[in-house]
Amino acid sequence: MKSKTNWNIKVAKFAANTVNPIRDVVENLKIEPNAAKKFIPLSIGDPTVYGNLKPCDEIIEAIVESVKSNEHNGYVASTGSEATRKAIAEYCSVVGAPLEATDIFVTSGCSHAIDMCIAALADPGENILIPRPGFPLYKTLSAAYGVQVKEYNLKPNDNWQIDLSHLESQIDSKTVAIVYNNPSNPCGSVFPEQHIRDLLAVAERHCLPVIADEIYENMVFSGHQFIPIASLTTEVPVLVCRGTTKRFLIPGYRLGWIQVHDRHSRFGVSFRKGLTQLCQRIMGANSIVQGAIPAILRNTPKTFFDSALRVIQENAAFVYNTFSRVPGLSPVKPTGAMYIMVGIDIQCFPTFKSDWQFIERLVGEESVFCLPGQAFNYPNYFRIVLTLPLELTKEACVRIAEFSKRYYVCNNIVKNNAL
Amino acid sequence: MKSKTNWNIKVAKFAANTVNPIRDVVENLKIEPNAAKKFIPLSIGDPTVYGNLKPCDEIIEAIVESVKSNEHNGYVASTGSEATRKAIAEYCSVVGAPLEATDIFVTSGCSHAIDMCIAALADPGENILIPRPGFPLYKTLSAAYGVQVKEYNLKPNDNWQIDLSHLESQIDSKTVAIVYNNPSNPCGSVFPEQHIRDLLAVAERHCLPVIADEIYENMVFSGHQFIPIASLTTEVPVLVCRGTTKRFLIPGYRLGWIQVHDRHSRFGVSFRKGLTQLCQRIMGANSIVQGAIPAILRNTPKTFFDSALRVIQENAAFVYNTFSRVPGLSPVKPTGAMYIMVGIDIQCFPTFKSDWQFIERLVGEESVFCLPGQAFNYPNYFRIVLTLPLELTKEACVRIAEFSKRYYVCNNIVKNNAL
Repeated sequence: MKSKTNWNIKVAKFAANTVNPIRDVVENLKIEPNAAKKFIPLSIGDPTVYGNLKPCDEIIEAIVESVKSNEHNGYVASTGSEATRKAIAEYCSVVGAPLEATDIFVTSGCSHAIDMCIAALADPGENILIPRPGFPLYKTLSAAYGVQVKEYNLKPNDNWQIDLSHLESQIDSKTVAIVYNNPSNPCGSVFPEQHIRDLLAVAERHCLPVIADEIYENMVFSGHQFIPIASLTTEVPVLVCRGTTKRFLIPGYRLGWIQVHDRHSRFGVSFRKGLTQLCQRIMGANSIVQGAIPAILRNTPKTFFDSALRVIQENAAFVYNTFSRVPGLSPVKPTGAMYIMVGIDIQCFPTFKSDWQFIERLVGEESVFCLPGQAFNYPNYFRIVLTLPLELTKEACVRIAEFSKRYYVCNNIVKNNAL
Repeated sequence: MKSKTNWNIKVAKFAANTVNPIRDVVENLKIEPNAAKKFIPLSIGDPTVYGNLKPCDEIIEAIVESVKSNEHNGYVASTGSEATRKAIAEYCSVVGAPLEATDIFVTSGCSHAIDMCIAALADPGENILIPRPGFPLYKTLSAAYGVQVKEYNLKPNDNWQIDLSHLESQIDSKTVAIVYNNPSNPCGSVFPEQHIRDLLAVAERHCLPVIADEIYENMVFSGHQFIPIASLTTEVPVLVCRGTTKRFLIPGYRLGWIQVHDRHSRFGVSFRKGLTQLCQRIMGANSIVQGAIPAILRNTPKTFFDSALRVIQENAAFVYNTFSRVPGLSPVKPTGAMYIMVGIDIQCFPTFKSDWQFIERLVGEESVFCLPGQAFNYPNYFRIVLTLPLELTKEACVRIAEFSKRYYVCNNIVKNNAL
């Protein structure tokens, strides 16, 4: 029997490899706001932090009833309660993509849903394709499993549509899934139907299932439409990840789910069993919230969604219009979700060696913080969250505009709105 | 570019290897109750299923206030909110084992806490020691990480204390932690101080940290005492996993935590960072519950805990006394948690080839279902849950006793109460 003779305790790889790039970026940035100016963070993807957006009475009441009923104290089936799964299946069923309760796997938030999809599909050494710029969690979650990520480009000049030939060129024999995000964080883009169909054609050609991050479902601006990817295919099996986080303004509740769309049973029985087993690891989502879900999904009025979207859309219009007129900045017009990406023509700001320095100095002088594009593996951009009270957003934009003008040096470079 | 040419989608190993032995046992048992008798499951480790045990008004009120405040809608720090961590640190601090808020990592239930401890400590090919009989989740969680489990024996004749020399013989160069469970599921045992000290001496000798599953903390019968393992050592670093699930009768709420007890910083900074990163995967526990935790831990009256314990203790006494007089059955007297293990002298029941058949026939004839010991890797026992209304427990015990008498064949074997 050989055993240890010292207290040298290492951290295991699974934990050590769970690296969140946003954390790294934020921790390595020197963020020291100017004490003379009120700090305005435009960085937090949580629509509830300012109190201007909150769940409606119907949601609060549903939770109160659920807890007072004393009927939701106990363990719930690990894949979710029957009533919850049924209510979600009804809420998410659309023409072309019908769902049964058994197609729903309830999770502890949408992050958990994405985590489970990766854990169920990809073995160490295999890879999944993810968008660039994109939500960094996909990589954070994959790395711990020893799963590689290969990035496919989105095109800022084309409303952040996918560069499909680039995507296709990334596929190899180890590719097991395409991660797709629509509406997009960080881009604020919404894909039109034909583009989704074109993506599905690629997936079908290579027999690749799609992991569809649709957490911003239906959060689209007037004149635009959210099209669930599953409604456009009977051939490509799709795992849709959603939740109540964004649209219902309750991120802390941690209620998400996976929808298994699979007309030809290509995932198969053992795959669904695998998802069930993953659910059993931590026994799913909070029971009180699950007890309230049927009422929340049924009773939340359209006016509630409309009113939150109005705030986002007003913010979007103001930020886009303001920065469109600022030399050296190139906002890309968003059409959904709750973000806008703004390009920095970094060669026009010779004071700064990188967008990183641009952001650091912006915080130091103007007390405004946006996430640098690097957090999404996309330098020379920054992302602005569009859920603040409009007055705050205006104040922040004015400061960013002044800051940019202060450091902008015109070298006869023609301003290019679309970068 | 080589890519797939068929829809052969496999389930990944992480998911496939997450096997829950209880599920397997239950799914493979032929459980067909006798339609003529009301079905009584004594198998579910959820104290709330019968409605006789439920959270007190203080708990319900705390949740209602938390949700109505609109202050807990948003994302919480992934390791838990400051107020929640502080309240838990205060609730769990005892003489000899002080805790700060930063020592607490809030999780989505105690299962998630155990999952995170394993993921943070053990790499593929390494092993952890787990009790036998023991809660099967330890193995379920470990297998997906490629972490081996090595079982150490508990001694039914000695109140299920650990066979420490057997435990020590299981330690090898790949062992990274000892999993310890007190009070015990499935045994219902509570370790005395000296026994815990003896275990700690082994851990210290081999420089092994302890993962202490103390979810049944303070659930001990009159005359017995729960001693937190962390209070007995300054040398052995301990990760304690607990939650509000059992003692507060709210398993569905999914609120657990890890307490890091580490006087000499043997886990180190990178280990704590690893735990933090694991928390970031799914962003922790429900925010409404976190918002209520300070009030729940502060306001829940002692009478509430006492009253639940009284039910368990009355059940325990009845089951123990009843089965002590049944030839062929050997109950082991519990002193805490909410379970009792009952031995079957299987050679006295020649009709059945195994305890498995005993249990199947018991369901078929008497409509009573207990988990067979095999679910805890311990054949020739069954586990009974002690949280049912006493009248139901009595009815179930009478049926089990009659069943046993019906099939018992005396071969001059002297009944051995302690097996």
